[in-house]
Amino acid sequence: MKQIDLMKELHVSSDKKIVLLVLDGLGGLPGSEGKTELEAARTPNMDRLSQDSILGLSTPIAPGITPGSGPGHLGLFGYDPLEYQIGRGVLEALGIGLELNPRSLAARGNFCTLDPATGVITDRRAGRIPTEQCASLVEKLSVIEIPGVNIIIRPVKDYRFALVLEADGLFDGLTETDPQKTGVKPLAVKALSSEAEKSAGLLNQWLAKAFAILKDERPANGCTLRGIAKDPGLPSYREVYGLNACAIATYPMYKGLSRLVGMDVLKAGDTVASEVETLKANWGSYDFFFFHVKKTDSAGEDGNFEAKVKVIEETDALLPQIMALDPDVLIISGDHSTPSVMKGHSWHELPILLYAKNIRKDTVTSFGEVACMQGGLGHIRHLDIMPLALAHADKLTKYGA
Amino acid sequence: MKQIDLMKELHVSSDKKIVLLVLDGLGGLPGSEGKTELEAARTPNMDRLSQDSILGLSTPIAPGITPGSGPGHLGLFGYDPLEYQIGRGVLEALGIGLELNPRSLAARGNFCTLDPATGVITDRRAGRIPTEQCASLVEKLSVIEIPGVNIIIRPVKDYRFALVLEADGLFDGLTETDPQKTGVKPLAVKALSSEAEKSAGLLNQWLAKAFAILKDERPANGCTLRGIAKDPGLPSYREVYGLNACAIATYPMYKGLSRLVGMDVLKAGDTVASEVETLKANWGSYDFFFFHVKKTDSAGEDGNFEAKVKVIEETDALLPQIMALDPDVLIISGDHSTPSVMKGHSWHELPILLYAKNIRKDTVTSFGEVACMQGGLGHIRHLDIMPLALAHADKLTKYGA
Repeated sequence: MKQIDLMKELHVSSDKKIVLLVLDGLGGLPGSEGKTELEAARTPNMDRLSQDSILGLSTPIAPGITPGSGPGHLGLFGYDPLEYQIGRGVLEALGIGLELNPRSLAARGNFCTLDPATGVITDRRAGRIPTEQCASLVEKLSVIEIPGVNIIIRPVKDYRFALVLEADGLFDGLTETDPQKTGVKPLAVKALSSEAEKSAGLLNQWLAKAFAILKDERPANGCTLRGIAKDPGLPSYREVYGLNACAIATYPMYKGLSRLVGMDVLKAGDTVASEVETLKANWGSYDFFFFHVKKTDSAGEDGNFEAKVKVIEETDALLPQIMALDPDVLIISGDHSTPSVMKGHSWHELPILLYAKNIRKDTVTSFGEVACMQGGLGHIRHLDIMPLALAHADKLTKYGA
Repeated sequence: MKQIDLMKELHVSSDKKIVLLVLDGLGGLPGSEGKTELEAARTPNMDRLSQDSILGLSTPIAPGITPGSGPGHLGLFGYDPLEYQIGRGVLEALGIGLELNPRSLAARGNFCTLDPATGVITDRRAGRIPTEQCASLVEKLSVIEIPGVNIIIRPVKDYRFALVLEADGLFDGLTETDPQKTGVKPLAVKALSSEAEKSAGLLNQWLAKAFAILKDERPANGCTLRGIAKDPGLPSYREVYGLNACAIATYPMYKGLSRLVGMDVLKAGDTVASEVETLKANWGSYDFFFFHVKKTDSAGEDGNFEAKVKVIEETDALLPQIMALDPDVLIISGDHSTPSVMKGHSWHELPILLYAKNIRKDTVTSFGEVACMQGGLGHIRHLDIMPLALAHADKLTKYGA
């Protein structure tokens, strides 16, 4: 039986509350002092909590696999990332705050440069035009109309934009139009199944109109579409776990990912402190709180060890306010590692702390990567986290007689 | 998604080099002094390396399962041994250095003793005739011809021989002719599917001719065929991992197993020292080196604790020459355990050391079974080793956006 079906079968209600505190990109590698960001950070509250918790290391997808933000969070949410895949177009749309519905088909768009005489691509990224220029081009493309279709187009960053078509009968399973090399013309969208023919036709219509509008622009006189996809239609948190769940996050992509699993997305401001205020204000209304801290990842991506340490310390300083709400289960981990020394996501396991009132405590007394190697949880996978959280919140009944 | 498909999708090229150092049968159990062979061996170089590495224990197939050499290596190579199976006939042929091709059908042969009057088997192993007698009988059988078929037959050891037919349209899925008991006649080869009918017919023709030739021999006046199989057609290392891989091994079976996954098999002499020379001479030409040390297993099979210790020490003494090549990733482990006290393969986990330049170090400072229980890798499976090796060599890109 698949885990998700087991959860559907076994979940029961209880009045207990679960907080999943995700520090994005939490896992690290040693910096110049021989300690990781988490180990270097002054985290007296997490360390104290670790004494009433069980700790360990968690693998997001599988050993050696570096996850993107989508798969990393799907794992945390208990949806097998190797089974459920979220298209790039959907993530791009979610990332800028577009809301998708079952009629939506989303694509990532790239402005590119075409040779005016031959139409072949000479620069797949149009010289990485600035975001302002991208916005002005998107403004021009926003006049495109196709009968029976609602078209949403928004600038993302540099040469990138997001395109969403809304209509009945749209399907994904479509090829990309970026040929991935210069010296050839952009491709047409092709349907990989007959049900997607209508979608391919509409996107090709849109592209023809876009090329006509862009033809005298320089350097961005063309565009390509990639990662054309629909909302994957994930079963909801209520359906799978029976949870009344909300998301407290500051960045659009994580709000969007939460919406994909049916969480209510709360207004949470821009800081960890404002997120904590949101948690407090909504404590009575939900039994599951996904609390997302973004800037650990941003700092890691920037290679800024000290900045990542500071975000961890800032979160640690707010932890007593979370604990004052008296959660029955609190998990602290991340979606993936983002070691500052690597300036990017990595495959390394995530330190994880599982606090619960009925926990089997281990001997670890601080929260850090090396300490967690000796933790009582051992090495788990992200997919194991939700069942463990539910169990410790009395939300799973016995399997079998 | 299967791991092998994930590897096909995610692998990227880098200029980094990986060495997989396999001490066959490395894992052990305590001898009279309370230490395993690896723990008893003086291994200053492995111990020093363990301080810059992450360690753990690896399960070849699944807990409690004792692997043969084929499945043990398939796991190390990243091919699920429960999915990909190599027939006994193929292993027997590879083990004596026969090269197989897609037209080959290989069988393991056993000489046996038949009752001259009734034709029933009286001894399934023909009194374990010496290898020289086996060779002389094989010489007599080598005259057998079947039109359109290239027939290769070679003595293996004692009463065992290897038979390979090469022809178009051969398939496996064939029954064995050894009835596994005495007092009954050898069986005929039967096809388990219609496509294998031709193969069954050819093998039965060959058997009829063989019985005619052997009828006046004593005690080996008959033979049986077992494990009739083709090369399983594994996807190659290049296809799965994008690796330009070579094998450095002294024994035919390991060379043959490496060939099955598309590794170049290098001339490596007969000793670990000559294997190291081969590694040095070919360092510039490959990015993956499978380096196989055989005699740890042979000593374990013989129940010779001291001899196994010596092979480990010999390998340790050569380790600085390997490290002088500056590999980006070095893994030291084994295909399966062969505890001297058990005189055979066992199911016990293998100690594993993973050295890489961007490793998350643990606190283990020596390489041994008990020390590895506290290792930062925890308990992994052989199948996890290749993804981890690739990740640490920058040869895997991110999964999902």
